[in-house]
Amino acid sequence: MTQKQRVLTGITTTGTPHLGNYVGAIRPAIEASRNPDMEAFYFLADYHALIKCHEPARVAASRMEVAATWLALGLDTDNAVFYRQSDIPEIPELTWILSCVAAKGLLNRAHAYKAAVQVNEEEKAKDPDKGITMGLFSYPVLMAADILMFNAHKVPVGRDQVQHIEMARDIGGRFNHLFGQTFVLPEAIVDEKTAVLSGIDGRKMSKSYDNTIPLFLPEKKLRKTIMKIKTNSLEPSEPKDPATCTLFEIYNAFATQDDVRSVRERYAEGIGWGDMKILLFDYLNAILEEPRERYAELMADPAKVEKILLEGAEKARSIAGPFLAEIRKKTGLLPFS
Amino acid sequence: MTQKQRVLTGITTTGTPHLGNYVGAIRPAIEASRNPDMEAFYFLADYHALIKCHEPARVAASRMEVAATWLALGLDTDNAVFYRQSDIPEIPELTWILSCVAAKGLLNRAHAYKAAVQVNEEEKAKDPDKGITMGLFSYPVLMAADILMFNAHKVPVGRDQVQHIEMARDIGGRFNHLFGQTFVLPEAIVDEKTAVLSGIDGRKMSKSYDNTIPLFLPEKKLRKTIMKIKTNSLEPSEPKDPATCTLFEIYNAFATQDDVRSVRERYAEGIGWGDMKILLFDYLNAILEEPRERYAELMADPAKVEKILLEGAEKARSIAGPFLAEIRKKTGLLPFS
Repeated sequence: MTQKQRVLTGITTTGTPHLGNYVGAIRPAIEASRNPDMEAFYFLADYHALIKCHEPARVAASRMEVAATWLALGLDTDNAVFYRQSDIPEIPELTWILSCVAAKGLLNRAHAYKAAVQVNEEEKAKDPDKGITMGLFSYPVLMAADILMFNAHKVPVGRDQVQHIEMARDIGGRFNHLFGQTFVLPEAIVDEKTAVLSGIDGRKMSKSYDNTIPLFLPEKKLRKTIMKIKTNSLEPSEPKDPATCTLFEIYNAFATQDDVRSVRERYAEGIGWGDMKILLFDYLNAILEEPRERYAELMADPAKVEKILLEGAEKARSIAGPFLAEIRKKTGLLPFS
Repeated sequence: MTQKQRVLTGITTTGTPHLGNYVGAIRPAIEASRNPDMEAFYFLADYHALIKCHEPARVAASRMEVAATWLALGLDTDNAVFYRQSDIPEIPELTWILSCVAAKGLLNRAHAYKAAVQVNEEEKAKDPDKGITMGLFSYPVLMAADILMFNAHKVPVGRDQVQHIEMARDIGGRFNHLFGQTFVLPEAIVDEKTAVLSGIDGRKMSKSYDNTIPLFLPEKKLRKTIMKIKTNSLEPSEPKDPATCTLFEIYNAFATQDDVRSVRERYAEGIGWGDMKILLFDYLNAILEEPRERYAELMADPAKVEKILLEGAEKARSIAGPFLAEIRKKTGLLPFS
């Protein structure tokens, strides 16, 4: 049996998607969802969201916004499996089973945990584990379950996530060793040229810097936000350097090669910052107008989004259910007759 | 709404039940199952079994033996809810949710974990967590889920388990604090006079000493095993001390007060060890004969045992399902519409 390559991506659900998320993660994933040679799994990682976020309203709103965003941008849910992690009870069950083979020592070395301990040590906390939950400590096991449950071959990740894929390999390999060949060991795919966008203050666009441009701002707000992007103090008609300019960087991430070339010329000619901001706004707005409308429609029709996700969950569970039964059997948890 | 007191007991499933288990745990639990003022939950803790046991055949056989044993001994499954932990997917899901509020520092202090670390330290292992799995480290969270899932008021436990109930209280209390009143905080019930039996070598009867008398040995084997029980070297007709005698201890755990009194007199009169062994065998055999037959019937009819446990799981899930939906909602994991 030849099987399509399976790719799996978890989507964080604790914020409102912004231009940086789009360029770095959403756009390439949506492109991959249309590739008929791949079987793509995309899921809203809402069990993970509970680790950091104890604000139910924020968790709920963000899940809905993220789902509507991906759908509005054209995710192909016929070809890709799109689901909420928390609709797949097989995932936490597999998490427990994997816990029974995962070495605690492996988790001690997880970057996120070690970073939290370091903060405590720097603050001279009495307990180096102060404020650290079991969720934070053990989430690489949950992540292993996310991946191994669907026997994903490839997991596209940022550099900082490579360790988690290695842990999934370690845990899956240990299970295979103890109970016989069961799991595909996943491979991390690190795209070294992943686009990173700057935010309105010139630092990396990130929720934690509060400098983002949300993808589906209403038109007026989008214009206002773009007008706030920090530039240098060169006057109109002075030649400008595109390489160090946030406006150009964002434009470049969205425009066609031809359009980029012509704007590059206008920088050399000394386009004024006000004009460039209007140009950028018009360009982005033209691209975002349609998906923004679809997004608004989806946000106004939660039942529709719910239905799409439940269909995705059904597809995912039709794989996870029988596979978990097989896994349980290997450990001795099988029906008596 | 007045609610019956809920009592919950987890049953280990990694060995064959013996007389010591019966007297210490099974008999009082079965008596409690008949108390109409209580709502008793008994479950085969087979997710826990995976922590220590990576032998599927042993896990599978032990689950079946334990279930058949409790049923053969008269567990009232109309009044009590009797189920396999692994038939309740709500349990591992709640385990994950609780992980997100449980402090890692709490788990660092668990006795079982600390004991394992101490062994490593004594053996001068490079890694104090050598050979320790995440299952061993985090199982008090699973245990908290077992208990909190059913809002059990009371959990009868041995002294060594009291800490786990305190942890369940801590974790449940923390959830209540963050998300609003949700869980009943359970109380540990420690029976100080819990009967402990000696094994055939005079030490505490325990699987780990290999000195047990399995409950449902075939008659001939039961006789043979009782004949092997260690005694002192007093001759027949010499007066004997019941207080230091394993034979008397076991007899005492099963016999009526009148019968105990008369055997005590025979000790004073100097009953020979051979006679006392036959007397003990006859007495035990008369008590065990009927349940042993029922046990054999059940072991020969796994479909029947399966059916009883699935009915128990259905009852348990009819409580766990709606309650988990409520818990999920509180954390923000709710349907979009």
